[in-house]
Amino acid sequence: MQDINEIAYFSEENSASTVIDRMKDAPNERLKEVMTSVILHLHAVIKETEPTMAEWEQAIGFLTATGQICDDKRQEWILLSDVLGISMLVDEINNRRATGATENTVLGPFHVQGVPHREMGDSISDDGKGEPMFVHGRVLDTNGDPVDGAMIDAWQASHDGFYDNQQPDVQPEHNLRGIFTTGPDGKYWYKAIKPAYYGIPNDGPVGQMLTGLGRSDVRPAHLHYIIGKEGYDLVTTHIFDGDDANLSTDPVFGVRASLINKFNHVDDPQRAKDLGMPNPFWEVETDFILNPAKGS
Amino acid sequence: MQDINEIAYFSEENSASTVIDRMKDAPNERLKEVMTSVILHLHAVIKETEPTMAEWEQAIGFLTATGQICDDKRQEWILLSDVLGISMLVDEINNRRATGATENTVLGPFHVQGVPHREMGDSISDDGKGEPMFVHGRVLDTNGDPVDGAMIDAWQASHDGFYDNQQPDVQPEHNLRGIFTTGPDGKYWYKAIKPAYYGIPNDGPVGQMLTGLGRSDVRPAHLHYIIGKEGYDLVTTHIFDGDDANLSTDPVFGVRASLINKFNHVDDPQRAKDLGMPNPFWEVETDFILNPAKGS
Repeated sequence: MQDINEIAYFSEENSASTVIDRMKDAPNERLKEVMTSVILHLHAVIKETEPTMAEWEQAIGFLTATGQICDDKRQEWILLSDVLGISMLVDEINNRRATGATENTVLGPFHVQGVPHREMGDSISDDGKGEPMFVHGRVLDTNGDPVDGAMIDAWQASHDGFYDNQQPDVQPEHNLRGIFTTGPDGKYWYKAIKPAYYGIPNDGPVGQMLTGLGRSDVRPAHLHYIIGKEGYDLVTTHIFDGDDANLSTDPVFGVRASLINKFNHVDDPQRAKDLGMPNPFWEVETDFILNPAKGS
Repeated sequence: MQDINEIAYFSEENSASTVIDRMKDAPNERLKEVMTSVILHLHAVIKETEPTMAEWEQAIGFLTATGQICDDKRQEWILLSDVLGISMLVDEINNRRATGATENTVLGPFHVQGVPHREMGDSISDDGKGEPMFVHGRVLDTNGDPVDGAMIDAWQASHDGFYDNQQPDVQPEHNLRGIFTTGPDGKYWYKAIKPAYYGIPNDGPVGQMLTGLGRSDVRPAHLHYIIGKEGYDLVTTHIFDGDDANLSTDPVFGVRASLINKFNHVDDPQRAKDLGMPNPFWEVETDFILNPAKGS
């Protein structure tokens, strides 16, 4: 029989170090590094919270259900990462920017590929529903110079808070989506409608958790953008409606102070006529500032 | 527009406190307590490991797959909890015992209900396959007095490392399982076979992780027990084969020094005859010591 006293078997005191010690010959060095941190902190959570066996079973049930509700249209684990602030933290760590450049925020699950290119000044509202809004501004570099040929991929929810791909029988495909390209002046401008706030999926394990925590599931109204130009960091961001009451309770922590803007209500027949808008209308003006890519 | 400077929006620096602050009105106080610890430590993991976006996607994929492979026969989340030492830690926290009482270890996934009661001295091997083993000892209280009427639920793997419910076409139902009840002397004794070591399921996400970490998936040979008597803590435990080479690498961290015992090889025709065993045979003798239940 082995000398059992020579081996440090698992105990409450040495639990994390016993598990970590087993990885000493890991072929995947990065996995070992990540799992060392995961194990240290997971064991700390258990020691701090001292779950009962019933609570442990409840946790296993929650984690299992969070995977099982996922399908090709629903990703509850990303939703969980979002509502715990993990998605934003990972995004921030990967997109630390020079002061002044437009900050990133969450991509969200409603971006799609294959959206039509539109001309500057076009409307992205194909069904004409909602209150008209004029959206414009410039794409600049960190010196304040215009960026020529920047691609702006824009998408947003409807006046009642749904994306076209959530309502295939109600909205035309690619409604409230468009890709634009800036000219030498860096300017962009298009017609849209004022988007509404909306709830994230709340009928699964994550929704139950938010209810138990007394947390809101309502995202404040926003416009989505991906802005790209060779030689600059890709920007994935939002413009938030500064008058939305849900800014401070965004369930996915997407709001940054720098991304909040005023949606102005304009009642000016002459300006409406000049812009080709009905009167009155909403207007938001935002400049996007691109960060030089690493190595550029 | 709200005064955006009054609100602490999410940032890399304040990430965990921003998320925790959202739970201040949680109706479920215990969930709030647990999630506060979870969020603090999860954010610490992200800050320590700084995952790339691709690594975050890999983690989401792993967590999703771990739920999706679960069905009514397979529970990969419990397996993950086991191989990270979480199951053992939760068990230990819930079963801290007076010095001297038999320690708990993992239940494992192979326990079943509805096992037949057997008489002391019976064999639990219904197919006679494997090397014969005589298993005996006493159930005692912490004063060393015998416990009358203790129920001993025993189960084990076969000579080639499978439980009956893993091999329904090979082994008879309830092979190598039995429930015994002690008499006034607290003694138990039954005939079995020497169990083999075996691998935990390694064809799913957890198996892939163990491979990446250079960890063994082989559990050392052991006998399983649940021992119960009103007025005492229920004991869920193993007896480990002290000569098994896998004791120090048990993937689920079930081994405790106090649960390791000698499986003795006996070549003694007279003793074999007295016990009704073939010669030679294996023998293991273990006393189980029950802890008084709280409030008893």
